[in-house]
Amino acid sequence: MAGISLNGIFPPLPTSFNEEGALFQEMIRSNIERLCQYPLTGFLILGSNGELVMLSEKEKVMALEAAREAIPEGTLMLAGTGGQSTRETIWLTREAARTGADAAMVLHPFYYKGLMTPKALVAFYHSVADASEIPVIVYNMPANTGMDLDAPTILQIANHPNIVGLKDSGGNVAKMAQVTGQAGSDFQVLAGSAGFLLPALSVGAVGGILALANIAPRQCLDIMELFIRGDLKAARSLQQRMVAPNGAVTRRWGVPALKYAMDQLGLYGGPTRHPVQPLEKETKEQLTGILKEAGITTGLAS
Amino acid sequence: MAGISLNGIFPPLPTSFNEEGALFQEMIRSNIERLCQYPLTGFLILGSNGELVMLSEKEKVMALEAAREAIPEGTLMLAGTGGQSTRETIWLTREAARTGADAAMVLHPFYYKGLMTPKALVAFYHSVADASEIPVIVYNMPANTGMDLDAPTILQIANHPNIVGLKDSGGNVAKMAQVTGQAGSDFQVLAGSAGFLLPALSVGAVGGILALANIAPRQCLDIMELFIRGDLKAARSLQQRMVAPNGAVTRRWGVPALKYAMDQLGLYGGPTRHPVQPLEKETKEQLTGILKEAGITTGLAS
Amino acid sequence: MAGISLNGIFPPLPTSFNEEGALFQEMIRSNIERLCQYPLTGFLILGSNGELVMLSEKEKVMALEAAREAIPEGTLMLAGTGGQSTRETIWLTREAARTGADAAMVLHPFYYKGLMTPKALVAFYHSVADASEIPVIVYNMPANTGMDLDAPTILQIANHPNIVGLKDSGGNVAKMAQVTGQAGSDFQVLAGSAGFLLPALSVGAVGGILALANIAPRQCLDIMELFIRGDLKAARSLQQRMVAPNGAVTRRWGVPALKYAMDQLGLYGGPTRHPVQPLEKETKEQLTGILKEAGITTGLAS
Amino acid sequence: MAGISLNGIFPPLPTSFNEEGALFQEMIRSNIERLCQYPLTGFLILGSNGELVMLSEKEKVMALEAAREAIPEGTLMLAGTGGQSTRETIWLTREAARTGADAAMVLHPFYYKGLMTPKALVAFYHSVADASEIPVIVYNMPANTGMDLDAPTILQIANHPNIVGLKDSGGNVAKMAQVTGQAGSDFQVLAGSAGFLLPALSVGAVGGILALANIAPRQCLDIMELFIRGDLKAARSLQQRMVAPNGAVTRRWGVPALKYAMDQLGLYGGPTRHPVQPLEKETKEQLTGILKEAGITTGLAS
Repeated sequence: MAGISLNGIFPPLPTSFNEEGALFQEMIRSNIERLCQYPLTGFLILGSNGELVMLSEKEKVMALEAAREAIPEGTLMLAGTGGQSTRETIWLTREAARTGADAAMVLHPFYYKGLMTPKALVAFYHSVADASEIPVIVYNMPANTGMDLDAPTILQIANHPNIVGLKDSGGNVAKMAQVTGQAGSDFQVLAGSAGFLLPALSVGAVGGILALANIAPRQCLDIMELFIRGDLKAARSLQQRMVAPNGAVTRRWGVPALKYAMDQLGLYGGPTRHPVQPLEKETKEQLTGILKEAGITTGLAS
Repeated sequence: MAGISLNGIFPPLPTSFNEEGALFQEMIRSNIERLCQYPLTGFLILGSNGELVMLSEKEKVMALEAAREAIPEGTLMLAGTGGQSTRETIWLTREAARTGADAAMVLHPFYYKGLMTPKALVAFYHSVADASEIPVIVYNMPANTGMDLDAPTILQIANHPNIVGLKDSGGNVAKMAQVTGQAGSDFQVLAGSAGFLLPALSVGAVGGILALANIAPRQCLDIMELFIRGDLKAARSLQQRMVAPNGAVTRRWGVPALKYAMDQLGLYGGPTRHPVQPLEKETKEQLTGILKEAGITTGLAS
Repeated sequence: MAGISLNGIFPPLPTSFNEEGALFQEMIRSNIERLCQYPLTGFLILGSNGELVMLSEKEKVMALEAAREAIPEGTLMLAGTGGQSTRETIWLTREAARTGADAAMVLHPFYYKGLMTPKALVAFYHSVADASEIPVIVYNMPANTGMDLDAPTILQIANHPNIVGLKDSGGNVAKMAQVTGQAGSDFQVLAGSAGFLLPALSVGAVGGILALANIAPRQCLDIMELFIRGDLKAARSLQQRMVAPNGAVTRRWGVPALKYAMDQLGLYGGPTRHPVQPLEKETKEQLTGILKEAGITTGLAS
Repeated sequence: MAGISLNGIFPPLPTSFNEEGALFQEMIRSNIERLCQYPLTGFLILGSNGELVMLSEKEKVMALEAAREAIPEGTLMLAGTGGQSTRETIWLTREAARTGADAAMVLHPFYYKGLMTPKALVAFYHSVADASEIPVIVYNMPANTGMDLDAPTILQIANHPNIVGLKDSGGNVAKMAQVTGQAGSDFQVLAGSAGFLLPALSVGAVGGILALANIAPRQCLDIMELFIRGDLKAARSLQQRMVAPNGAVTRRWGVPALKYAMDQLGLYGGPTRHPVQPLEKETKEQLTGILKEAGITTGLAS
């Protein structure tokens, strides 16, 4: 298991559906191709924005296959493979490896919250990592799971040669500082949202998996480049401008807003799976205003 | 769609696995046969105790088939069929009807918490009810979902001819009173836990789907019979005694404790799916003590 | 410390302020006098509805003095005396005893949530009970404190000769069943809200301290009398009708709604202390409708 | 109301009590004098670490007076003055001004959580700011209040000439970025915990009010100086080392741990007010180890 470098920016690609609600593989490929004009390190397929939990077993594999066809060599494909049981997670992780994923991003089980003790969580990740041919990334997503992995548990999980990093979407940057400070130097932390990309970088994160990178890849890359160059003032100014549009397509209005924005910007957004509702007309207008004010208006080059 | 009466007690049957973790259909049947010596109104298959979220698509159908073979005519089979998408839920609800389920108990989607507005939830339940050949029961389970359906939303959902009832596991009895008082008289509320069976009955619930009914069916039935007979003092005394053992096999130690207790009492419990951990030795001893103290010791007749 | 019987219904009296926001002792007395035409067991002064936390040290004592002047002998005066420190709580408990309170209802400290371990909570209650000349009642109020006393902690606290009961406003009736079942037979549990009065009685509560009893004392007393008489059907029907108006003057719109309703019904409500806002016009209309629909319209006899 | 600059580091001084639990003004002064050998911008008196909620009205004023005697001119004294009512808050804010405080740090009311709407919160802060002769700083402390002020509400509150800043202890750095980006340029944000000092600075915070600055003032100042100098690598390394000791004296073990550490380091810690419990022996040892590992061992010069 050679090292994998997660430095950089990854869009967590939404999964495309057609108007009948069926998987739309062509649009998955086409979105990837357009986004590939930016120097993105890779893509996450089947994350929360990829509606993993809305897909049948067969569709999950089909989405990964479609993505891999479009993601060029040298660009990483991360695959979301976490399920409620170790068994299901191992199955999908192996399917991901078979389709050519470079790493598995694994959300932990959370339905039986009271039973997900540190011991159970460590056992889960270590079993999956043992069974996986590709490196494993831990995924913490409190807003959806109702749980929040703490630093001691993450550090224990990290203590496995096939577990290479963490995507944390919770925004607790103090925790990220603790993890980057105490985990081995090859354990890589990724910000899970553009809302705290710069502060995460400031404490040692190596990049981010950012919903916003689907619609503002340039700006996400710029924050990171400005930070690396040491131009903190410019980085901060851009970071501040990205908080509102990022909030709009994540916590506030979620995947339907992200897809709507993609439609506006020349990518394919399309519908989300029911029962998630399409945006109200008024919300669409508010969203358009927020994107415009943040300078996310010109569309991606085609 | 003729009426279905949910009056009475239903065990939410755990799904049996063998030592390798594979579905163990024979034990599903054997547990049902033993529990059928009690005048239970029916069984819930694939509830939270049935580890629905731990099963593959194929296993879900197999578990339902096994259960239906053992559940005699005249005893109801409720099938847990809720998934994160309307599409998946309709698929499994139809499979349940095909295997002979009498009603579907449908947990709402909860992964995208912020998007599960009342509008989305009502749309979800009404779409499923429209598509279902069998009656639909709403399922509220805050401890696992991190959401709590409120009375106005439930009342709106209830306003559909194919939605016949609610299982509420949250223990908010004031809400149950509001629902039983304001929903149509044919909307049936079931307590979701033996910890509040008697108080739920006092405000108009018609019965319960009770983990404890897997190991103490006699006591659960007795609470209900004493209540109906008007012997509140005896009902209360029994109810009070059931709170501790019920807590032990639900909130406190969950499915592994329920399965362990079944093993002790002559039923088949067996392992839970990973990463849920087996009980520690010390917990087993505590649990045994709690069951003993509550008089749940003699085992079920074989 | 002779026994005190808490059987029955207690309104937690709002504290009256005049239009300038100053304590209005005359109206405290006048409200009590009017409510005393009903066979209430007593009053709680300085509970959450009594805006305890909004009063200066001096005002707390003045409010208790005013109340005691109006509460006739034979009717109990409970005084809310819980503060964040043991020291402050003992001080106010002693002041309450001096003004003639029959018992102290003590909310636990909750500001330093992480430090309020079971050990700290037990130490707190036992120190207060040791120092108090009057019996102490434990008060659990999760919606305001952000904490929820669990049964084992309550049972440990209850194990003191000068701690005589519990008011639980959390609505977890399973917990109440556990406490009534396991505490000594002289430990008395009171429902903390009319929304779950009947279910609480069904598991052994002896009465309730009910915001609703300020505006619908007759109905609260009736639920209890019907329950005692064994007419569960009538009790349930009345209980169901009381859930909505009770919710309106508690969780939904709080003290300003309770005071507004009192104004409508011939008692003195008056303003709440800032920054709590007065009801919007639209809310007033909704509230009036809810009270009317529940039959709380005729006003209290004057 | 001339401008006040909050740039820099402020320890939120614990309030000293003697062994009988009485206010110990001499030790308040002595602690300040020792800490003043570091170039701290000022002190916060009567914050959460200052046990504001544990003090009587009189003691609050006495603590402020003692502090002012010791805090030299040119070093700022911030006074915690927030209460549950506007009235009480205005009273204490005026007392603070009278004793010589340079600004009031005002925690919002939180007991009636459901009633603390944005409208009520804005009204509260604006009333206090109108009545205050000294500038007002907003204080957000979710772990203690159970509420979390959001960016839109903060921005509305900030829109008052006498409200000059925010201390945010919640750690949501994305929110801080939004506030620093959208509030007027003279609105100053302070990190509320050393756990996220560097990330907060990276998005535009001007300093911090940090429990850790009571025991590791040098390190807190260094993080800030390294950041300003542009030596992010060294800043990050120091930030990472401070997460664990900071967590130990805040979220994990709280004020008793902070006071114990002060005792170890040559300052006066002393007891906390009951019912907060003193540290267990084992916790003391763990804490000593954590401080040592982080290099907080040599004590403050005397």
